[in-house]
Amino acid sequence: MITEDLGKRIRELRQKTGLSQEKFALNIGMDRTYFASVEAGKRNISVVNIKKIADGLGVTLSELFDFEKLR
Amino acid sequence: MITEDLGKRIRELRQKTGLSQEKFALNIGMDRTYFASVEAGKRNISVVNIKKIADGLGVTLSELFDFEKLR
Repeated sequence: MITEDLGKRIRELRQKTGLSQEKFALNIGMDRTYFASVEAGKRNISVVNIKKIADGLGVTLSELFDFEKLR
Repeated sequence: MITEDLGKRIRELRQKTGLSQEKFALNIGMDRTYFASVEAGKRNISVVNIKKIADGLGVTLSELFDFEKLR
């Protein structure tokens, strides 16, 4: 499922930043519980919020979705 | 704006398929007027629907978002 694949990818990249879910969500101005549910693959997240997360992670959207090539 | 950039990219790739908006939307089981508003950059589309469009276009999500590198 795409929401789960994306959530895993976001978690992986967020963990590389060394920031907790709470701190990262705070940095990008996103609700902490919402962000946690995105990482858990439970949200059908919109492109505006995906872009906000990608910007916070310092990656392009194309890089964020790179996981498709690897699986 | 990300919704506009994505809409333009989808339109560009959809036109390459030679299909009209109507025919493409029908092929992927998406409402025609909804799909038209996505191409127009007027929808904050969700990842499940983005994936549906990418699959219909025969590109990965990473390829769909490649436009960021070009601008």
